Amino acid sequence: MTTDQLFKQIQQKQSFLCIGLDTDYNILPKILMKHEYPVFEFNRQIIDATADYAIAYKLNMAFYEVLGTVGWVSLEMTVDYIREKFPDIFIIADAKRGDIGNTSKMYAKAFFDKINFDAITLSPYMGADSITPFLEYHNKWVILLALTSNPGADDFQQLIDREMGIPLYENVIRKSRNWGGKNNLMYVVGATRAEMLINIRKIIPYHFLLIPGVGAQGGNLADVAQYGFNNQCGLIVNSSRAIIYADCTNDFAKAAREKAREVQEEMCKLLIRYQLL
Amino acid sequence: MTTDQLFKQIQQKQSFLCIGLDTDYNILPKILMKHEYPVFEFNRQIIDATADYAIAYKLNMAFYEVLGTVGWVSLEMTVDYIREKFPDIFIIADAKRGDIGNTSKMYAKAFFDKINFDAITLSPYMGADSITPFLEYHNKWVILLALTSNPGADDFQQLIDREMGIPLYENVIRKSRNWGGKNNLMYVVGATRAEMLINIRKIIPYHFLLIPGVGAQGGNLADVAQYGFNNQCGLIVNSSRAIIYADCTNDFAKAAREKAREVQEEMCKLLIRYQLL
Repeated sequence: MTTDQLFKQIQQKQSFLCIGLDTDYNILPKILMKHEYPVFEFNRQIIDATADYAIAYKLNMAFYEVLGTVGWVSLEMTVDYIREKFPDIFIIADAKRGDIGNTSKMYAKAFFDKINFDAITLSPYMGADSITPFLEYHNKWVILLALTSNPGADDFQQLIDREMGIPLYENVIRKSRNWGGKNNLMYVVGATRAEMLINIRKIIPYHFLLIPGVGAQGGNLADVAQYGFNNQCGLIVNSSRAIIYADCTNDFAKAAREKAREVQEEMCKLLIRYQLL
Repeated sequence: MTTDQLFKQIQQKQSFLCIGLDTDYNILPKILMKHEYPVFEFNRQIIDATADYAIAYKLNMAFYEVLGTVGWVSLEMTVDYIREKFPDIFIIADAKRGDIGNTSKMYAKAFFDKINFDAITLSPYMGADSITPFLEYHNKWVILLALTSNPGADDFQQLIDREMGIPLYENVIRKSRNWGGKNNLMYVVGATRAEMLINIRKIIPYHFLLIPGVGAQGGNLADVAQYGFNNQCGLIVNSSRAIIYADCTNDFAKAAREKAREVQEEMCKLLIRYQLL
């Protein structure tokens, strides 16, 4: 999927919403337990209920790995289900991997060949050769952590370096932006830091950004749009818990649809306000 | 396992060798293909052949994830096998994870509860709250990336910060060392950077270090020992490909045993030279 195709989908759905399928087995509605793969069944119902309003789904690997092989089956079933029923939707593996070259090649194979994800989140700590094996895949994306939305982001990402006088997250963006291009490289920028988007947009005006942290983590959508939009929207904003756990009873899918629709409506207004529709 | 128990095992085996089970399905000897789980069968034979000389095994998750559910079964079988047959051996998940708090809790559960690893490698980029959920487990270890052995390590890990005048990897060590202690926190320091161990040992004299990069990646064992030993050895040196792929024919296990024995002999000499036996 190219940047143009992403923008086309954003315009069609009037939405730049990604829904995070951080599906926690332990809090699933009891009615799902009769299914062989309750996590998949939850995902399937959430997807069917929200696909009108979402341009992407993001699957956080931890929630599947914790279930062992059953988790991997549920993960593969979910990706296959989206791929088949909603072929235009962008599917992200939120994996935050990053290892030496020969290992990164294996991870790339795992997430792009073995499972048909469009994109994977990666951690930049180990540098270029931990990232570039993923960028060699045609039509697949790397989403590199730059500035995250958690409290610990301040521990290292904000350290100012002596030579350039810029924080580590900016060093990451400046150095990595030429490892790929605007059609295969995005960045994670936490929504809790919307004002820093001004600076980031100066460095990478055309790259898409994946914005977590709207909703449960406290980020503000209007701020993110104001500082982060580019001429092709350039934003994918993720919401996980606020949507998929909007209601934890048997009506979960209906409540998720309602919540997703609310967010999409807000997004639609912002896209109109900034003349992107 | 405590630092004391690790040192006891090192003294008993006269070795501080960790063997990396980076088992690549595509280059396994053909004879293994008759087994239902060839990767497990390869691991089992390598483990039986080398357990006399190794104090730890490290399983790199990428090589298992690339096989999907079959890989997860092989991984679980391998950990269970070591745990049952060689209960003193330290088992490391080389996973290089790191995510926001509620996700890190899930990863900790996956690697410490669901699979019975002793330790997991983590990336520091997202800071304290991405690491501390793992440190809350009794008798389990975090192995934090500090200075890695790959070329890309220079991209960010060596950036000098303006305030302290120290490189990022040192910032990581200084800030994180009090998140845990010498009985639940180790650091990854690439063997290709042995001289930097002098500085690291000033900051964390008592923590164990996991040293990759000896063998295929070109690190030198004598240098690592000279600069990295502390009064309880303090080093776990990993070798993966140089041992497990010493011979790719049906004699692979015998060749791996021979290679592991060679490394152990060199380690024994170093332990004697520095009066650790």
